[in-house]
Amino acid sequence: MTVAVNLNKTVDSSYQIHIGQAEPLRFDSKVAVVTNPTIAALHLDTIKQLIDAPSVCVIMIPDGEEYKLFSSVEKILDRLFMERFDRSSVLLAFGGGVVGDMTGFAASIYERGIDFVQVPTTLLAMVDASVGGKTGINNRYGKNLIGTFKQPRGVVIDPNWLWTLPKREFNSGVSEMIKIAIMLDQQFFEFLETADLQLPEVLEEAITRSVKLKAGIVEKDERESGLRQVLNYGHTFAHVIERETNYTAYLHGECVAMGIKLANRLAVKLGLLEEADAKRVESALERFGLNIVYRTPDPEAFYEAFSHDKKSSGGKINFVLARAIGDFAFVDDAPKATVLEAIRGQ
Amino acid sequence: MTVAVNLNKTVDSSYQIHIGQAEPLRFDSKVAVVTNPTIAALHLDTIKQLIDAPSVCVIMIPDGEEYKLFSSVEKILDRLFMERFDRSSVLLAFGGGVVGDMTGFAASIYERGIDFVQVPTTLLAMVDASVGGKTGINNRYGKNLIGTFKQPRGVVIDPNWLWTLPKREFNSGVSEMIKIAIMLDQQFFEFLETADLQLPEVLEEAITRSVKLKAGIVEKDERESGLRQVLNYGHTFAHVIERETNYTAYLHGECVAMGIKLANRLAVKLGLLEEADAKRVESALERFGLNIVYRTPDPEAFYEAFSHDKKSSGGKINFVLARAIGDFAFVDDAPKATVLEAIRGQ
Repeated sequence: MTVAVNLNKTVDSSYQIHIGQAEPLRFDSKVAVVTNPTIAALHLDTIKQLIDAPSVCVIMIPDGEEYKLFSSVEKILDRLFMERFDRSSVLLAFGGGVVGDMTGFAASIYERGIDFVQVPTTLLAMVDASVGGKTGINNRYGKNLIGTFKQPRGVVIDPNWLWTLPKREFNSGVSEMIKIAIMLDQQFFEFLETADLQLPEVLEEAITRSVKLKAGIVEKDERESGLRQVLNYGHTFAHVIERETNYTAYLHGECVAMGIKLANRLAVKLGLLEEADAKRVESALERFGLNIVYRTPDPEAFYEAFSHDKKSSGGKINFVLARAIGDFAFVDDAPKATVLEAIRGQ
Repeated sequence: MTVAVNLNKTVDSSYQIHIGQAEPLRFDSKVAVVTNPTIAALHLDTIKQLIDAPSVCVIMIPDGEEYKLFSSVEKILDRLFMERFDRSSVLLAFGGGVVGDMTGFAASIYERGIDFVQVPTTLLAMVDASVGGKTGINNRYGKNLIGTFKQPRGVVIDPNWLWTLPKREFNSGVSEMIKIAIMLDQQFFEFLETADLQLPEVLEEAITRSVKLKAGIVEKDERESGLRQVLNYGHTFAHVIERETNYTAYLHGECVAMGIKLANRLAVKLGLLEEADAKRVESALERFGLNIVYRTPDPEAFYEAFSHDKKSSGGKINFVLARAIGDFAFVDDAPKATVLEAIRGQ
């Protein structure tokens, strides 16, 4: 199964996403595989056997969101200079979202831009990070606040890597699938409500449907000036939860699940979403073992933190909410008191 | 006089270059003026009076190529986060090439990209850095090795800033004008051979002709995959000279002048360029007080350093040479011994 991401900017920045058993990857130039020790221990030999290139080097970066910092990107760049990579060289991101985001960022600023290929090994990276060309790092002000839009040369999604993925990380990825289904595709949501993702063909179908939905959005709005903001559903809240818990207590998808619940609670209070639909979403998330309850220690500070979000603009907080399962609404005039009630869980 | 830079990628990334007395600059959003203490002391009040925006803040960065580092970009970014700049905010680069390159880089990675406007105050920045969308910083491996291609929203070139520019810096800018004339426009070279750039209308004409020539090249090859490499004439050598002298002994344009001489010497040895034309170029450079003699302490190391250049690829050294005044040639098979002779000045 191949999904084409056709961007109208240039032919160059369009690319293909291959979903299924990985096939040999051929390159005419030097390749650096960027990965972390956890993935390397499991799959480095396999990926190296798949790569056919004049030379291959491996760059290890530490495993974990807390290392998604410019200092890690600098280490990648330093190694590329030492190995004398040039503008025809290629980076291959082999790992989850952290590896992908940092490799993409390094590729976008090394000598003003070289190509990179994504081989995601987590469900989250397969269905989310690998589509859309977002790269970035975190800093003390928040997540992904420094970065670029940079499309990969190609993406190879082989669901077989997932059999070694810890269950908690797997479920964290499911929350992004549920997210996009709620926004755009009621039938896909219903599919996820009952799907047994342990079955390889069911898993591949779920990934493919997610990727197609996301690719469809990115094609229409690569730079997130409008429609693409639907992908941010649950994330306005999730980003603050991640900051409040120092990016360590929960995985990204776990925060998204909690963020979806908070966003739905706000939508119900605003009269946008039926209570029954909000409950149905909560059940779907809980079916995958996702904890959806988050209590902030400081609701006012939580609210204040929204204004740090990249997607806020002109002082307004832009919420992406569900109007129904499979339908979305953009809201930029939610009363502060109502938002605070939702945050407090009142 | 307005020069349009029409890039075929998107309508968005095309922009206009205004040349002449600066007119008021109106913005609907927050603006940060990025400048350095030297320029600020001379012209900060004037530029602030020209800006009409809901809010204006000033970000000072140190003056000098030696501060063109990621740490300076980080300071710009930190200030933007503190001031809560969002994706609709705009940076205004007010200074020379260092200010422009770092401001552009910061704009290209802040929240995955915000707009910036260039108001160059040096001749070098007016004729070179402000056209073409190159941003970047230096690191221990060389100049501009980290960066992006990012087009400004607009460029305002007011030659009046130049009356306070030190003569040495002015002449450094002239060498980039001579460079582009040698590559592309014999008549412009002849104009520069006799022009009195102290006359405002002559200076404005020289700037306009340079900008038009460069814009023409950038339109045809924004990403430097081919033709744009003509702009690199003299620079393959200049970059090594800058590294060998720690970026402190000479200004960029001074190194370009020395690099042009070395490139021409190589071209003469390769039988590409007439000795008389090489001499004529040297006279033109010397007319502007440019020193064109550079003796490397270590010719082998000088040669070896070429392979670190961004424009080298696949192990080959790509030289951009003059075939005549107003005509260029790309050479990637110059024998090492001949290059070494040119470097040694033999």
